[in-house]
Amino acid sequence: MTSRSSVEPVPADGIGAFDHECDVLVVGFGCAGAAAAYEAARAGADVLVLERASGPGGSSAQSGGELYLGGGTEVQKACGFDDDPDNMYAYLVKALGPNADTAKIRLYCDGSVEHFEWFRECGVTFNPSFYDQPTWMPMSEDGLMWLGENSWPYNTVARPVPRGHRPAASGFGGAVLMEKLSAAATSAGAVTHVDTVASNLVLDADGRVAGLVARKYGERVTYRARRAVVLTTGGFVDNEEMLADHAPVLLGHGKVSDGLDDGSGIRMAAAIGAATRRMGVVEIALTALPAMVCRGMLVDGMGRRFLNEDVYPGHWSVHAVRDQPGPYWTIIDEEGYESVPEADRWGVLPKHAAETLAELEESLGMPPGALEATVETYNRHAANGEDPYFHKDPKWLRPLKPPFAAIDPGAGFFGGTGGPASGASGFTLGGLHTTADGEVLNNSGDPVPGLYAAGRAASGMHGEGYVSGTSLGDGTFFGRRAGRAAAALEKETA
Amino acid sequence: MTSRSSVEPVPADGIGAFDHECDVLVVGFGCAGAAAAYEAARAGADVLVLERASGPGGSSAQSGGELYLGGGTEVQKACGFDDDPDNMYAYLVKALGPNADTAKIRLYCDGSVEHFEWFRECGVTFNPSFYDQPTWMPMSEDGLMWLGENSWPYNTVARPVPRGHRPAASGFGGAVLMEKLSAAATSAGAVTHVDTVASNLVLDADGRVAGLVARKYGERVTYRARRAVVLTTGGFVDNEEMLADHAPVLLGHGKVSDGLDDGSGIRMAAAIGAATRRMGVVEIALTALPAMVCRGMLVDGMGRRFLNEDVYPGHWSVHAVRDQPGPYWTIIDEEGYESVPEADRWGVLPKHAAETLAELEESLGMPPGALEATVETYNRHAANGEDPYFHKDPKWLRPLKPPFAAIDPGAGFFGGTGGPASGASGFTLGGLHTTADGEVLNNSGDPVPGLYAAGRAASGMHGEGYVSGTSLGDGTFFGRRAGRAAAALEKETA
Repeated sequence: MTSRSSVEPVPADGIGAFDHECDVLVVGFGCAGAAAAYEAARAGADVLVLERASGPGGSSAQSGGELYLGGGTEVQKACGFDDDPDNMYAYLVKALGPNADTAKIRLYCDGSVEHFEWFRECGVTFNPSFYDQPTWMPMSEDGLMWLGENSWPYNTVARPVPRGHRPAASGFGGAVLMEKLSAAATSAGAVTHVDTVASNLVLDADGRVAGLVARKYGERVTYRARRAVVLTTGGFVDNEEMLADHAPVLLGHGKVSDGLDDGSGIRMAAAIGAATRRMGVVEIALTALPAMVCRGMLVDGMGRRFLNEDVYPGHWSVHAVRDQPGPYWTIIDEEGYESVPEADRWGVLPKHAAETLAELEESLGMPPGALEATVETYNRHAANGEDPYFHKDPKWLRPLKPPFAAIDPGAGFFGGTGGPASGASGFTLGGLHTTADGEVLNNSGDPVPGLYAAGRAASGMHGEGYVSGTSLGDGTFFGRRAGRAAAALEKETA
Repeated sequence: MTSRSSVEPVPADGIGAFDHECDVLVVGFGCAGAAAAYEAARAGADVLVLERASGPGGSSAQSGGELYLGGGTEVQKACGFDDDPDNMYAYLVKALGPNADTAKIRLYCDGSVEHFEWFRECGVTFNPSFYDQPTWMPMSEDGLMWLGENSWPYNTVARPVPRGHRPAASGFGGAVLMEKLSAAATSAGAVTHVDTVASNLVLDADGRVAGLVARKYGERVTYRARRAVVLTTGGFVDNEEMLADHAPVLLGHGKVSDGLDDGSGIRMAAAIGAATRRMGVVEIALTALPAMVCRGMLVDGMGRRFLNEDVYPGHWSVHAVRDQPGPYWTIIDEEGYESVPEADRWGVLPKHAAETLAELEESLGMPPGALEATVETYNRHAANGEDPYFHKDPKWLRPLKPPFAAIDPGAGFFGGTGGPASGASGFTLGGLHTTADGEVLNNSGDPVPGLYAAGRAASGMHGEGYVSGTSLGDGTFFGRRAGRAAAALEKETA
């Protein structure tokens, strides 16, 4: 795909008769687009959704489907957890920070129970059962899981309560989630044009976004939006040039996307002077298995630990890939490996097994004595149930004993066929600067008339941190708000 | 200062008669502006320079004045060093990377000897003497210094040759540098309007940048540029809102600037659809003293080393502040401290002196045994003249012996009155995406007609790395190119 295709705006008065007209034009039918289209249609607007693929889903449909929800949902209550919006807020500000968008997080937490119910109204079901093991994704149909809430330092700022809500599905739940959300949007009246690639915004004479130009099977198609255009086009992990310009840490790693997250919406809006925010912030998943990492240790290329292994696994992933010299290794002993539940092994076997750490560190190419020093320190404190460096939960602390093994983080979750050689995959979190109602701001801090955005085309709640479910979560939550706000605008006459 | 003042463009046809006209309008009279104005004027263009302060200089005048130059300059030859452009290129690609702009670096290295001579033609003098000690800035008038070329891994990719060129001055050389450059621009015919704050670009009907609107003592003043506007307005370290949006790592630290680097040029250009690049990349100076750090070790808040202490000090500064948990400490022994030349002590005395490392780590609040483990490992390898972790030059390796001391990195270079509480100061390296001739690119990858940029308003040669002298260096080098390119454009008639 050409990353530098023209995204310059087209003047409305040069278009003549538009091929299609609607009130609210939603661009991209992932989770944010579905949420925006649903709410706009339900508010009575005439809604068109453009999707470049041959059907709805986008990257959302390829995801695990986790939704970060809380504040006291039915699922939380059924599993015996007592949560409230303030408690949820305290955790998210810390976990999505530093520099998280606290105003957006506040709204998100206050509205989370209602948002959970909205998913249920859309037909998404959640089993009232809890998976209490460290994992990227349970191989069960449990509806609730931890996403880092029970680890240090997060457990010092908020009462630990699990908030990972999972649509009932075996394995990846994104497809069933998107099936329900897209059906809900369609039932509410939104019409979809698939195989339609948006390319340029259309501006009327006074600078309002009045529609857009797209291509379908190579032909130009023009759309007029009487109320607003809502960009829900996703992030830019599939655009190598944008990665090099804005988020080079992801170059050379795998992409968590449907292959179409090329940043086109961000570029179209920036071309008319829209502001972007935090374009360098990314989420990364190192494919080490949390159940193994927790029972041993995660070390960098010099055999050093760098984080408590029981945090949300994206946190150790980002810290590793962004800040530490690779390659990264899970170091575990036989007793630890044997205690990993079969379902959480993903078929991954120990590698580089060795009777001594000297042997192991040599075979891993680490400085002599490096791993010995790390394990000696770890064991000395673990014997007292302590981890004064990183504060791993005492339940995972136990002196490691021979024989030892190192596990390549490329093995595991995504580590089968098609896994990234680096063992890491990611996506982008930066995008258009928006208000909580999805209005896209310009570089003066004012809304661009007629333009809204949500999902990963926008910079959402996130500062520099991330936990699973906050992208589907804020995409749908703020997508709904954008759809409602767009539908409430006055209709512009041609 | 209001960070979100309106930067939206103004249509030329609404302005009527402009207050001032010129061929090339340069905005900002720091080093890039001086270089652009000088070359444009020398090429015969009618040049106006706008400066918001009451005289030229900008942040450049407050800098140390180091210029990263090489390839075989007279100063290098006089000091006995043999350099060439390819060798310089190999170092810079590594030191300014990953993801440095290799095309710009290639031009910069090939033109470096000529650029050095240009400074001399402008009246800048360099003493043909070499300062061979690790330092942020020598307290001597030596004309040449190391900027990391002799440290690992840089010494494995290029023959180590010093390239830090210093204008003859005691201490900070930026003021004398800017005195010469601004005088050269003025002598060449450039006219300066001071106390004039640019606020909005002016666009003609077909989207060409035709001038700008400014304010002088509260009054609106309009400028028409018949050929081009050249933005040399500096970075955005003084704009807290832009830092939060793009480079939050600098929040809470000191600012290396004249206090006026508010990103206004970047915002004015982004408002008309100009593309930005690498807005999150920063340079940071931790005020630890390199002469002490090299003789001991630099550790993080857990007592761990993280880089060879003899790299360009900005490298350990950035790695510390961006990637390691603080606070950071220089750990040194009595013998090491005593061997620091008086001139490189900056009056900094050891703190937290202790007979044992156990005592020292306790007083620094580190995990018990942390510093003991680090020093034990360091000493064991240092006894063999080795540093298998970070490859510090063997000349600095020696087992550390009691008594020990920790030195607060807030003490030193900038650590007197007015130094930042965090011990770190920085500035931004991201900005407008430009070609090597300074043309500002839009989000489709095409030049914005009539708009040029250079210096820290632009993303220059830098990927994610930095060394001293590359900001004044690429600001002047690409400022010159922008000035020449702007002067060569056809004049637009009103």
